[in-house]
This record gives sequence, C-alpha cells and structure tokens, in this order.
Amino acid sequence: MTTKSREVLLKKRPVGMPTHDDFELIEASVDDPADGQILVQNLCMSVDPYMRGRMVDRKSYTPPFKVGETLTGGALGRVRASLHPKFSEGDYVQSNLGWREWFLSDGAGVSKLEGLQAPLSAYLGVMGMPGMTAYVGLLGAGELKDGETVFVSGAAGAVGSIAGQIAKIKDCRVLGSAGGPEKVSLLRDEFGFDYAFDYRKGSILEHLMEGARDGLDVYFDNVGGEHLQAAIAHMRPFGRIALCGAISQYNATEPVPGPNNLTMAIGLGLTLKGFIVSHFNHMREDFVRDMASWIADGRVKYRETVMHGLEQAPDAFIGLFTGANVGKMIVQLADDRAE
Amino acid sequence: MTTKSREVLLKKRPVGMPTHDDFELIEASVDDPADGQILVQNLCMSVDPYMRGRMVDRKSYTPPFKVGETLTGGALGRVRASLHPKFSEGDYVQSNLGWREWFLSDGAGVSKLEGLQAPLSAYLGVMGMPGMTAYVGLLGAGELKDGETVFVSGAAGAVGSIAGQIAKIKDCRVLGSAGGPEKVSLLRDEFGFDYAFDYRKGSILEHLMEGARDGLDVYFDNVGGEHLQAAIAHMRPFGRIALCGAISQYNATEPVPGPNNLTMAIGLGLTLKGFIVSHFNHMREDFVRDMASWIADGRVKYRETVMHGLEQAPDAFIGLFTGANVGKMIVQLADDRAE
Repeated sequence: MTTKSREVLLKKRPVGMPTHDDFELIEASVDDPADGQILVQNLCMSVDPYMRGRMVDRKSYTPPFKVGETLTGGALGRVRASLHPKFSEGDYVQSNLGWREWFLSDGAGVSKLEGLQAPLSAYLGVMGMPGMTAYVGLLGAGELKDGETVFVSGAAGAVGSIAGQIAKIKDCRVLGSAGGPEKVSLLRDEFGFDYAFDYRKGSILEHLMEGARDGLDVYFDNVGGEHLQAAIAHMRPFGRIALCGAISQYNATEPVPGPNNLTMAIGLGLTLKGFIVSHFNHMREDFVRDMASWIADGRVKYRETVMHGLEQAPDAFIGLFTGANVGKMIVQLADDRAE
Repeated sequence: MTTKSREVLLKKRPVGMPTHDDFELIEASVDDPADGQILVQNLCMSVDPYMRGRMVDRKSYTPPFKVGETLTGGALGRVRASLHPKFSEGDYVQSNLGWREWFLSDGAGVSKLEGLQAPLSAYLGVMGMPGMTAYVGLLGAGELKDGETVFVSGAAGAVGSIAGQIAKIKDCRVLGSAGGPEKVSLLRDEFGFDYAFDYRKGSILEHLMEGARDGLDVYFDNVGGEHLQAAIAHMRPFGRIALCGAISQYNATEPVPGPNNLTMAIGLGLTLKGFIVSHFNHMREDFVRDMASWIADGRVKYRETVMHGLEQAPDAFIGLFTGANVGKMIVQLADDRAE
C-alpha cells in the first residue's frame, strides 16, 4: 500500500522577492515502511527567513536547495507506522523534512520529542530553533550582562520577540523595532519592551536616541541595512552586535553595501559577531531548561501566525518578507489525531 | 630667559587629502622652568594615521584637534632643565607633546624612559604605540592561535610589519599586502611573510586565494575598503577580524560604504572586533617583555622612514597616505647631544 502525500518543490530560483511561480505543489505517494523504517505524517512545518538564502545558488553555511527537488525545513509530525526498533506508532518526531505531508525514513535526522513542556507547535518556535537563536544570540554571541541596554530589530518576529523578553528577564532596558503600529503596540503591551518604534516612520537613529539616550550595549540584528548602520552609530564603548540575520537584504538582486560607519567600531572597541544557532549547541540544555521555566511562569509569551494546508506554504514563506507574521510563522498540515 | 622653539599648528581642517596649506609653522618662545616644572627638548616625534581622524570636527574616541592650536602626538625628548623633584636634567621622556621643538611642563602626561632596550626612536615604533598595537591586535582582538593563517594589510607600515612578524613567531602562515614592488620584496625578504602582494595589481581576493587556498583564520585590517571585503569573502569558519585602521578611507569626503558581504559573517560565525591600543593596556607588560626579547634575538626587525626637521612634519604626515613610508615614519627634531 502507499499513502498519498503532497510536497512543495523549488520550481526555479527566485529573483528578488519570491513569487508563487517559484514553487510547485506536487502529488507524491509514499510507500509503507520496510524493515527499519518509519512512516511519518507531518502535523506542522516551519518557514524561516534563512531559507531564502538556500534558494540562491551560492556557497553558504548550508548547501543551496536544488531546483526541481522538494524543499526541506523544520517540521513536527507523528509516527503513523514503524518497523524501526527506536520508534513507535504515535511518537512525536521532529525533522528537517518539512514542505511535505508524509515521509518515509530510516530514522536519520529524525528525533523523538518526549516530555513536551509546551504545545507541539511551540517546538518550531519559542522552544525550537528560533527561540534558541534568540537565547544564544543574546547570551552567547551578544554576551549580554544584566541591566544593559539592548536593541532588537525585527522585534515582532519569531526570534526578535523572544530576544526582547529574555533581555527583560535579565533586567535590561529593551528597545525594539517592527513594521506598523499594531506590531509596535504588541511589543510594548504584550512583550514588555521599554521602547518600541515603527521603523517605517522617522529616522531609526533618532528613535534610538529617544529610546536610549546613553546608547546601546547590545544590538541584536535581524535586519541588516539601515538598522545596522543606525545601531553602530549609537553603540556605547565596548558594545556588542550579534549578527543574526539581514532580512532587509535577502531579496536584493545586487550586493547591498555594508554600514558606512563600520570604522566607528575601532575607537569604540565594538565587537560584531555573526552566528547561527548550531554554533552554540553547547548551550542547548541551558536553553531548554530556562525557556521551559520562563514559559511556565508566564515570563515569556509567544505568538504564532498559523496558515493552514501545505498549499499555503509558499504564501507563508513569502509573508515573512512582507511582514505578514507576528511571532512564529507556522504552516499547519494536519490535525493531531490518532489515525 | 626663554628658549626659541618652533611649533606646527592646524591652520584649517583638511578636506580630502591633507595639504601644506592645512598646517602652519610658527615660532614660539618657551620660558625657563619655574618651581615644579621641566623644560624638554623633543628629539623626535611621531606622525600616525589616526591623527587624520582628529583633524575632523566630529565625536570620536579622542577629541578633535582645534584649528589654530598646536598639534599633539607622540614625542621623545630630553629634560634640559628641571625644577621638578621627579625629573633630572638629561632624563629621556616620552609625552604626547609632539609637533613642537621645546615645551615646558609640570610633568603631567610626561613619563621617564628608563632602561632603554632599543634605540630611542624605536619607542615611537616597534617598542611604542604601533608595536603594541600590532601585538594586542593579533593576540588580543584577533585571538591568534599558533599555526593559523593570517592576513595583514598595510603590511609594510609601522603596525603591519610588526604584526606579520609576530604571527611568524607564532608559527602562522602569513600573507601581507603593500603598495608597490619594493615593499612587497621587503615583506618577503626582510620580514619573512609567506606570501606578499601588491594590492594595486590584480584582484585582492585572487591574491588571497592564491596565498591561502584554505582561507584565513585571522585578518588584521589596517586598510578597510576593498581589503576588508575581500578578506571577509575568504575567511574560514569562526575567523576573527581585528579592525585596527582604515587608511584607505581616512581622506574620503563622503561616507564610504562598508563591505557588501558582511552577512557572510552570520553563517561563518565570524567576529569583527574594533580596537585601539589603550583597550588592551592590561597587556602592556607582556608586550614590553616579549618585544624587547624578540628584537634582541633578531626575530623582529623594524624599519624607519626618517624625515629631518620640524618643517618636514606636515610632509611626513601626508606621506602616510601616499605610501611614502616603510615601517615607522619618524620626524627627527634634534640630535641627542647634551646641551
């Protein structure tokens, strides 16, 4: 027997902002497991800004997606049939085999999710890669100290919203930028930012001066471009910049000039540190323990923007670049019911 | 009685490349010391690229020079008369009161040079600020480890030539760039660089690929601009960039865009660290001990480009930006004779 599935493949490499034409939804059939295999039904999948980089054919920290092949990315599912000694029917699993409804696996790259401390989808967000990115970016790359002044860009997003709240837990003064008045209100009222602003209105540097008269100790950069330049101009001596992402530049069709004031880093003794979450795998246990307790205590709140059905995945992905999401963008693929 | 002296003052702020018209040589008379004062004759003075930044009226790590006032900078001299309990006639002293032949002081900011371990002028170069900048930039900001691959730009200059030799002492593979074939030969033959190239010929990135097929662990940046962009493109994972200077940009009349590939720092986990020598004052004792022994052993060699007479100081300074110097640019002001 086989199971009917659907998958999204990369039809062609996007130029500039991705469009529907860059993706193709196909039907596939997945065999029943043979000995040593599991059949997994994905329940939800992640779309993340870093995937845009993998759609370009260039050397990077992860190899590029191939045209004509099914995309990959974080996904959570349940084992529906198992002939594998380490997995049982009903196990929750996480994998990098998103962008598809079902898959067959020998278990490589698939790990069981046990002792869930939050709703399942949170393991794509606050308890997963984006949450850990916020945690290691602030405390690892950014070397945040209690009581400092921190600026987070893209602060209503999956990473930024968590970074800001961690900084508040560390008794910091926290500034955040986002696009549009609703998100700005959310930063202030829901996530507890001390100063939040709409980067589309007014000068970013003037906002920073208003929100942090004495300058910034740490800047958590999700955006790049003007945000980074303004932050450099407002850093205090020995400030640290955690370079996490540059979403303002991911769809650029020409190389984007870097900050024109980078030489200020010399006299100020600034450190700019690029990182991805896997560089700080040694902090995983600390992250899981801290974040689970913060969520349980209500000290960290999180939002999700959920779209339904695999056919929505390209829209969900494109929406990351138009600001369609508040918090983590999730694509729900199936209900979590026993088969 | 008074002593006739000459001083150089900043006549106007340079726009772009500094010219003679930006400086003025004036005659001054210096009084005999009163109680608690010393009269110092400067023997030699330093011109350094960082001084260009101080000629601009903007906030920086040192306050700007004032128009119409005598310039300042590193200088070495001898006490010619003393009514100060801590100084005696004949003492060698260092101060920041360069750009003048004589000065009167109450001792503030003037320190005795005792137990000289190298010729006097070396204390403006290899044993002084530029030598220590090379040392702390590599070992402090750059966190150099034995056996790594290092690229030094501006490698024939006062800082770069020492940085390259320190890296060789640490068993590193060392690449260096300089302007013109004579300097390139010097890097290779005198300072022991493994690969030296003329940045004016060919692509910097291609030179780096030829000289270090497997990439760079550390880049010591004296130059900024294209050099920095090419180095970022060729860094290995977790590479470190010590931002020391950006001489290619100091005379720019418009803001200079930063490297257009700074986002590569994210996936590679690169660290860019700006610094000035005073950020690492805690390493001073180590520096003095190590450098004195390396010079004594012949493991560190140094060159000086010497110009004679205070009237040459503006030319010496301007020459820093046209590549007129090999090693440390020194202005000799007087012979070291007893009066």
